[in-house]
Amino acid sequence: VHNGIEYGLMQLISETYDYMRRVMGSTAYEAGMVFAEWNGAELNSFLIEITAAVIVKKDEHTGNPLVEMILDTAGQKGTGKWTSQSAMDFGVPIPTIDSAVTMRQISSRKTLRGLVSARYESETGIRSDVGVDDLKKALIFSFIVTYAQGLTLLSAASGEKNYDLNVAEIAKIWRGGCIIRAALLENIRAAYVSDPALQTLMLDGSHAAVLDNSVSSARKALSSFVQNGLPTMCLSSAVAYFDAFRSERLPANLLQAQRDFFGAHTYQRTDMEGTFHTSDWDKH
Amino acid sequence: VHNGIEYGLMQLISETYDYMRRVMGSTAYEAGMVFAEWNGAELNSFLIEITAAVIVKKDEHTGNPLVEMILDTAGQKGTGKWTSQSAMDFGVPIPTIDSAVTMRQISSRKTLRGLVSARYESETGIRSDVGVDDLKKALIFSFIVTYAQGLTLLSAASGEKNYDLNVAEIAKIWRGGCIIRAALLENIRAAYVSDPALQTLMLDGSHAAVLDNSVSSARKALSSFVQNGLPTMCLSSAVAYFDAFRSERLPANLLQAQRDFFGAHTYQRTDMEGTFHTSDWDKH
Repeated sequence: VHNGIEYGLMQLISETYDYMRRVMGSTAYEAGMVFAEWNGAELNSFLIEITAAVIVKKDEHTGNPLVEMILDTAGQKGTGKWTSQSAMDFGVPIPTIDSAVTMRQISSRKTLRGLVSARYESETGIRSDVGVDDLKKALIFSFIVTYAQGLTLLSAASGEKNYDLNVAEIAKIWRGGCIIRAALLENIRAAYVSDPALQTLMLDGSHAAVLDNSVSSARKALSSFVQNGLPTMCLSSAVAYFDAFRSERLPANLLQAQRDFFGAHTYQRTDMEGTFHTSDWDKH
Repeated sequence: VHNGIEYGLMQLISETYDYMRRVMGSTAYEAGMVFAEWNGAELNSFLIEITAAVIVKKDEHTGNPLVEMILDTAGQKGTGKWTSQSAMDFGVPIPTIDSAVTMRQISSRKTLRGLVSARYESETGIRSDVGVDDLKKALIFSFIVTYAQGLTLLSAASGEKNYDLNVAEIAKIWRGGCIIRAALLENIRAAYVSDPALQTLMLDGSHAAVLDNSVSSARKALSSFVQNGLPTMCLSSAVAYFDAFRSERLPANLLQAQRDFFGAHTYQRTDMEGTFHTSDWDKH
C-alpha cells in the first residue's frame, strides 16, 4: 500500500511537471525552482525534494537537463499493480493508484503512442490559464486524496483480516523515513490519533479545511489539462473520487434498473424495505 | 471482457443521466425522451434502448418515476473486477472499465457518502453550459474508447496465450445479440476485417473521424462535470486515455529519474542505446 500511494504521488508530480513544460512553457530549471520552493512549505516531502533535484541535474554528455534525455517509458516492479488488484478484492476504491498503474502501462507502449499521436497531434491548441499557485493547490488536494485512498484500504484490510493495524502509528513510521515521507503525514497521524476509527481523511476536520481551500484550484487545473489535451489520469481520478463521495445520491439507481431489466438482478427501494424486481420495465 | 465493457458503457450512460438530472434539471421523462432519440441514430444499442425505457417507467406505489425510487447502491457479480484484475496482469490499460468498477464500489458505501456529502455539500454552484448534443458526442467518444480498451485487451490476451481470437468475428457475434450489442459494433467489425492486426480502434480511419468530430464535445462536457462538482470517473478516464496515447512524449521520464534516484532502478536514454544509472542526482 505504501508503494501504491508512492505510484500515485509520483504520477501526480509528473502530470504537474508535464503541464509546466508543455502548457506553461517552463524550462526544466524553472520547473525545478518551483518544486524546490514547494518543498519549503505544505508539500515538504522526499518526492517533491528529489523532483526539484533531478529536474535541474545537467547531462554530462549533452549539457541538456538530464531528465529530458531519459526515455519516457516507466518501469514497474509490480507493487502498484498488487495494491490495485488487492484493493479490488477488498472492494475498496483506490482510483488514483489504479490510474498511476495505468499510466505506467501506457508509458511503456511508446511505439503505439507514436502512431496515435501522429494521427491526432494537432487536435488542441495550447492556452495556459492556470497559475503556479493553482497547480500547487491541485497537488496538495490530490496528495491528500491519494493518502486517503491508501489509508482507507489499510483500515478495511485490517478490519477484514484482523491485522489490528494502528493507522496513526503507520503514518508516524512513514513520516520517519520512507519514499512517501512527507510533512502531510504528521497531520495524518494526528487525525488518526484523535479518531482511530476515522473512515476517511476527508472527514477529518483539519484535512477537510485543506480540501475546502484547494478543491477549486484542483477543478481549475483539471479543466485546463483537459482543454489543452494533456493527460491527467491521476488528478482527474482524485477529483472524481472526491465528488463521488460528496454525492449523497449517485446515478447507481439507473445501473440497478438496467441490471434488473436485462438480468433480473433485483433492486432495493429508498422508501420500503425488501428486494424488488420489475418484470415489465418496457411496458408503459 | 464483454462484461467489463458493459460496466463501462452503463456507467457512462449513468453519468450522462446524472448530468441531465442534476445540472440541466431535466425530468426523468425528458431524459428518457433524449435517450430514445439517441437510440435512433449512431448510439443505437440495447443499453441506450433500455435506458430510455427504464427512465420513463412509472412506479405503481408512488406514481413517481420508478428509477428514482431505487436505492443508488449498485451490485456486482464480479465480472468487471475480474476483467480489471486480468488486464493488469496482461499489462493492458483499461481505465474506463477500472473506473466503472470503482464507481460501483463507491455507490455501495452509501452511509459514508452521506457523511462526506453533508460535510462538503455546498462546495459548488450549478451552471449548465453544455447542450444535449455535446453530451451525445461525449457519449459516442467514450463508448468508442471503451470498446477500444476492451478489444485491445482481447488482442493482447490472444497474442500472449495463443487464443487465436478473431476480433472481427467477436464484434459480429456481439452485434448479433448480447448486452453490449450496438450499431457501433458493425463499424468495429469492419475495422478489424480490413486490418485484423489493428492495434487500437483509435488508429482505424473511420473511428478516428468520429473521435475527431466528438472529442471537443467530450472535453467541454468533462469540464462542465468537473466545474459543477459531478463525479465523472468514466468520461474523464476515457479522455485521459485518449490524451495519453495522443502524447508522443509523456512525463514518464521524470518517473524514471525519480526511480533511479531513490532505488537505482536505472533508465534508458533517447539518444543512446543501453541502460544508465546516475549515482549523484543531487550534485549540481
